[in-house]
Amino acid sequence: MPKIVDHDARRAELAEATWRVVYRDGVAAATVRSIAAEAGWSPGALRHYFSTQTDLLVFAMEHVMAKATERFTAEDRTGPTREVVQRMLEELLPLDRQRAREAEVWLLLAARTQVDPAARDRMKEADDGIRKAAGLAVAALAADGLMAADRDPDRETARLHALLDGLALHALLHPDLMPPDRASAVLTDHLDGLRHPHQP
Amino acid sequence: MPKIVDHDARRAELAEATWRVVYRDGVAAATVRSIAAEAGWSPGALRHYFSTQTDLLVFAMEHVMAKATERFTAEDRTGPTREVVQRMLEELLPLDRQRAREAEVWLLLAARTQVDPAARDRMKEADDGIRKAAGLAVAALAADGLMAADRDPDRETARLHALLDGLALHALLHPDLMPPDRASAVLTDHLDGLRHPHQP
Repeated sequence: MPKIVDHDARRAELAEATWRVVYRDGVAAATVRSIAAEAGWSPGALRHYFSTQTDLLVFAMEHVMAKATERFTAEDRTGPTREVVQRMLEELLPLDRQRAREAEVWLLLAARTQVDPAARDRMKEADDGIRKAAGLAVAALAADGLMAADRDPDRETARLHALLDGLALHALLHPDLMPPDRASAVLTDHLDGLRHPHQP
Repeated sequence: MPKIVDHDARRAELAEATWRVVYRDGVAAATVRSIAAEAGWSPGALRHYFSTQTDLLVFAMEHVMAKATERFTAEDRTGPTREVVQRMLEELLPLDRQRAREAEVWLLLAARTQVDPAARDRMKEADDGIRKAAGLAVAALAADGLMAADRDPDRETARLHALLDGLALHALLHPDLMPPDRASAVLTDHLDGLRHPHQP
């Protein structure tokens, strides 16, 4: 009888090993070889899941998205809307080591889309997730009268999404210039500014 | 007598060849081999200027910065401050093919900093340039009464810089969702919003 392999369980096991390497040693250290060693598998056994550096990033990004969604869903939504929205959006910024590692994977995958089309679907999925979160934030503020009625929700979603990704990028690239408290403060300014009418 | 080589001229010649490859075929096609062929040099002759993919991106970024600075400096500064500021900042967004190619180099170099420290100095230099441009924009608007007096120039510079880089990223990754006219419109909304006081 052939051996029955539970591919979902194996996949989850490998995702955890991938994440442990990224978390402990950084994205630069995440190779087929180092992840095989971490998982206690032969490098050949990984081929079913990934064989190129793009596959590896796509695979790691899947894990990042699952973790971010988990945090986003588990977030306590009691309290004033303005504060809840801020907390939810901060889950998406690299304000601690785990989220910084997640953002590293995101940035490397983003760059990879420019040179390898195989990276594009997963990147689009990830970006759609962030855009959706920005849209929910804008809708929640509007529903509570915290966004001026003449502001276009769609344009404000695009603007908030750009701000979030720009802050994530700066927090990663220049942690001295954009430490966590400053990223939070800039986000605060931005959300507070939505209450002003678009037209004077 | 040893042959006298004008390294600055050779360097400029190579930068132009690098740029032609990137512009015509994209960053993915820019390799030591393809650039040597474009310049009509032997691959070995390039070693003096770059030998790794990071070196190549660092070299290409130098050219990108020179071009952006040239456009930024040449920009017509006559007319209402609000319009001049918008035009200057749009020089930094990937609103046409040349600027999109420049932004590709920027994104790849940004990702490279996460896995290769050799990419960091040039990236910092490039980011300092954009931050400085954002600071000039904020100062010009403030001087003309187009930014509320209680807004902190430093925080508004950080916010504008994050917005610009986020818009550049989205224009590159999702040109369908962030076409040039939408990126301009989001920037317009952002700059217009600065006139509202920080505190109600």
